[in-house]
Amino acid sequence: MQAVGIIVEYNPFHNGHLHHVKEAKRTTNSDVAVAVMSGHFLQRGEPALVDKWHRTKMALASGVDVVIELPYIFSTAQATGFASGAVQLLEAMQCTTLAFGSEQGTIEPFLNTYHLIENNRARYNEIIKENIQLGKSYPQALFIAYEQLKQLSPNAYIDLGKPNNILGFHYVEAIKQLNCSMQPATVQRIIAGYHDAIDTNHEIASATGIRQALFSGQSLQEVTKYLPSASMEQLQIWQKEHQNFASWESFWPLMKYAILRHTPQQLKQYADVSEGLENSLIKYAASSSNYMDFMNALKSKRYTWTRLQRMLLHIYTGITKEQLHAFSSPSYIRILGMTTKGQQYISSIKKSVTLPLISRVAAITDPILSIDIRATQMYQLGIQQFSNKKIDEDYKTPPIRL
Amino acid sequence: MQAVGIIVEYNPFHNGHLHHVKEAKRTTNSDVAVAVMSGHFLQRGEPALVDKWHRTKMALASGVDVVIELPYIFSTAQATGFASGAVQLLEAMQCTTLAFGSEQGTIEPFLNTYHLIENNRARYNEIIKENIQLGKSYPQALFIAYEQLKQLSPNAYIDLGKPNNILGFHYVEAIKQLNCSMQPATVQRIIAGYHDAIDTNHEIASATGIRQALFSGQSLQEVTKYLPSASMEQLQIWQKEHQNFASWESFWPLMKYAILRHTPQQLKQYADVSEGLENSLIKYAASSSNYMDFMNALKSKRYTWTRLQRMLLHIYTGITKEQLHAFSSPSYIRILGMTTKGQQYISSIKKSVTLPLISRVAAITDPILSIDIRATQMYQLGIQQFSNKKIDEDYKTPPIRL
Repeated sequence: MQAVGIIVEYNPFHNGHLHHVKEAKRTTNSDVAVAVMSGHFLQRGEPALVDKWHRTKMALASGVDVVIELPYIFSTAQATGFASGAVQLLEAMQCTTLAFGSEQGTIEPFLNTYHLIENNRARYNEIIKENIQLGKSYPQALFIAYEQLKQLSPNAYIDLGKPNNILGFHYVEAIKQLNCSMQPATVQRIIAGYHDAIDTNHEIASATGIRQALFSGQSLQEVTKYLPSASMEQLQIWQKEHQNFASWESFWPLMKYAILRHTPQQLKQYADVSEGLENSLIKYAASSSNYMDFMNALKSKRYTWTRLQRMLLHIYTGITKEQLHAFSSPSYIRILGMTTKGQQYISSIKKSVTLPLISRVAAITDPILSIDIRATQMYQLGIQQFSNKKIDEDYKTPPIRL
Repeated sequence: MQAVGIIVEYNPFHNGHLHHVKEAKRTTNSDVAVAVMSGHFLQRGEPALVDKWHRTKMALASGVDVVIELPYIFSTAQATGFASGAVQLLEAMQCTTLAFGSEQGTIEPFLNTYHLIENNRARYNEIIKENIQLGKSYPQALFIAYEQLKQLSPNAYIDLGKPNNILGFHYVEAIKQLNCSMQPATVQRIIAGYHDAIDTNHEIASATGIRQALFSGQSLQEVTKYLPSASMEQLQIWQKEHQNFASWESFWPLMKYAILRHTPQQLKQYADVSEGLENSLIKYAASSSNYMDFMNALKSKRYTWTRLQRMLLHIYTGITKEQLHAFSSPSYIRILGMTTKGQQYISSIKKSVTLPLISRVAAITDPILSIDIRATQMYQLGIQQFSNKKIDEDYKTPPIRL
C-alpha cells in the first residue's frame, strides 16, 4: 500500500481541506492519506476551536485514513521546528510523498527556492540579521533577504509572502535536510487564501475566515456551505455540548491568572518570552479585562501577533524554554484515529516502523507525551471556563475508528 | 494617647471580637485600639470570606480605631512567623499593650510557659524532633514536648491544646525575643471555642462556626445574632455585589489550573511544598472535580489540614520558598482604615514612628508590599470565578475613614 502524508490543523476541516486530501491521493496515486494533525494548540499560538477528537472525526469522515498527533512541542513551534517534527513523523509512517497545498501547484519553484537559499545560506542569514537589527520583524527580515537572493539567478521561485508557501518551503527544507526518502509534492490550492475572509460566492473559505464568522456571533448555519457535512456535524455536536468554541477570549481568566501569578523574573523562564516583555505582560494583564484589550495593549511593531500569541500560549500551558527546546525529534507516533483502510495500512508497516506506535497513552511515559497530556489538561480547564462538560482525556481515549 | 494592639483576621468580625476589643481597651485603660489584620489570605491557608476593605469597615464600626495590614508573608506563615510580624507592627505603632484573647484570662500562665520552654529549649526541640521522626504532625509533637517539660516545675501553665493559647504563647514569645517595650495582656474569652459550631442559645459563635453556617447554604439571617449590625451590613453589601463568599471551593478552577500547569519538579519551588507531595498534588488535582474531593484525597496523617492548605495557598498565589522566607521583619505600616480618634492617634505618633506609614500603595515599591499587591490580584481573580464585579484595587484604594 502506498501512503501520501499531509500536515494539517483542521481548525475546522473545510471544503479546501477536502479538495487537498482528494487531490493529494489522486495526484500521487496513493491508497491512503496519513495526516499529522496538531493537537489542542496550534501554530499561530491559539487553542483549537474544538478538541482533537472532534477534529479527527471530521478528517476520517472526509478522506483521511490515518490521523496521528503532532506533539505540542512541534505544533506550537516556529515554522522550522513545526515542519521538522511533522516531516519526521510522516517519514516514520513510511509515506511515499508529502503533499502540501500551495498557490503554485508545481514543486519546482519550491526546490529552486530551497537550493537558492541553501547555496547562499551565510549571505541570507546576514541580511536577516541586519534587518532585525533595523527593527524589522522576523518574517519581514526573511522576506527582504529572500528578495535580494532571488536577483542571483533567473529561476522560477515561490512567493514567500504567502503563509502557505512559507510552510511548504519549510517542508521541502526539512525533507532535504533530514535526508528523507519521502518526496515533496504540492497540490494546487483553490480560491481562498490563508487569511481570507469568507466570500459567499464560493464554497471554499479559509479556516481563518470560518473562525472569524463563528466568533463574530454568526450561527453555524452561516458557514455550512464551506464545510463538508461531517465537519458541520462535529461542530454541532461540540456546540450542543459546550455552547461556545475555544478561544483565548474564553480562556482569558486563566491566562490573566497565569501571568499575574508570576514576578517579571519568573515569566522569563517560559518559552518565547523575550527579554523586556515580562514587565509589559504583567502591567497589561492587570489592566485588561479581556484578551483583545490585552493583545492590543501588548502589540508593537517589533513582534508579530503570532509571535506574541505563541509566547502567551507557553505561559498559559507553563512550558519553559528548556522544555520546549529539549527535543528536536519525535519519540513516538500517537494514533488519534483511523479508517478501516488506515488500519490496514498501519498493519502493513507495523513491523518496519521506526518509532513506537501508541494507541493508548497510559501504556508509556515519555517527556514529549507528558507535555501533550498537560496541554490537553490545560485545554480542558480553558473549556471549563464556559462549559460544565468535560472533553475526552488522553489517558482514557482509544484511537477513533471509522 | 495610649493604644492597645490586637492581632486579628475578622473573618468575619463577630460578637466575640466585639467583646475582645471593648475589653482590651477597658482593661488596659487605652484610648484607642490598633488592629493588625490579615489581608486576603489567612493563617489557616484560606482566602478571607470577604475582602479586606469590607472587613476593615466592620472593625472600624465596632470599636477598632486603626486597622493596619499584616502582610501576606506573615499572615500566611506558621504561628511563629505570624506572631513575629504582627508583634513588630504593633510595637512600631507604639502600642503600650498587646491584648489577646485566651481561655485563662490572666497573663501569668503565658509567661510561665514562655520561661519554661525558653529555659529548656534544647530539650524541647529534641522531643519535638523525635516525635516528628515517629510520624507525628508538628502540632502534635509540640504538644507532647510541652507536656513533658511541664513536669519539671509546678507552676500554672497554659493549655497548649487550644489554638488561641498557641497563638497567645507565640505573641508572648515574640514580645520577649524582640525585646519589645509593649507588654502582653490577655482578655478572657467568652463561650465559643476557636472551632466550635454555632450554638443557637448564645450570642457568641466562633468565626469558624459562622463560616460553616454560611457555606452550608444557610442565609445570612441565620447568623445575625452572632454579628454586630455593622458586620451584618458589610456581609449583605458583599453578598449583593458578589452573590457568593470567597472560599477555596469557589476558587478551585484556578487552583486546579495552577497545579496542573507545573511539572512535579516545578511545584517544589513553592513555599511549604514538602518533598514527596508534588506528585500527589498533580495526580489528585487531575482526578478531582472540586476542592473537597481534592483535599480528602490529599489528606494523610502526616500533614494537618492547615499545613496542606497553606501549601496550596502558596501554589495558588505563586509564592516561592525563597520569596516567603526572604524577610523576617515588616518594612512599612500599611493603613487600611481609621476612625477620627484613630487618625488623632496616628498624628500623635507620626514623628516618632520607626517604619514608614503608607496610606497609598502607589507611592512606594517594596518587595513585601508587591507580594501583597499580587495577593490582592489573585484574590480578585478567584472572586471573578463567580462574580462579574471587581473588588477595590490596592493601587487605588485610600484608607477607609469612619
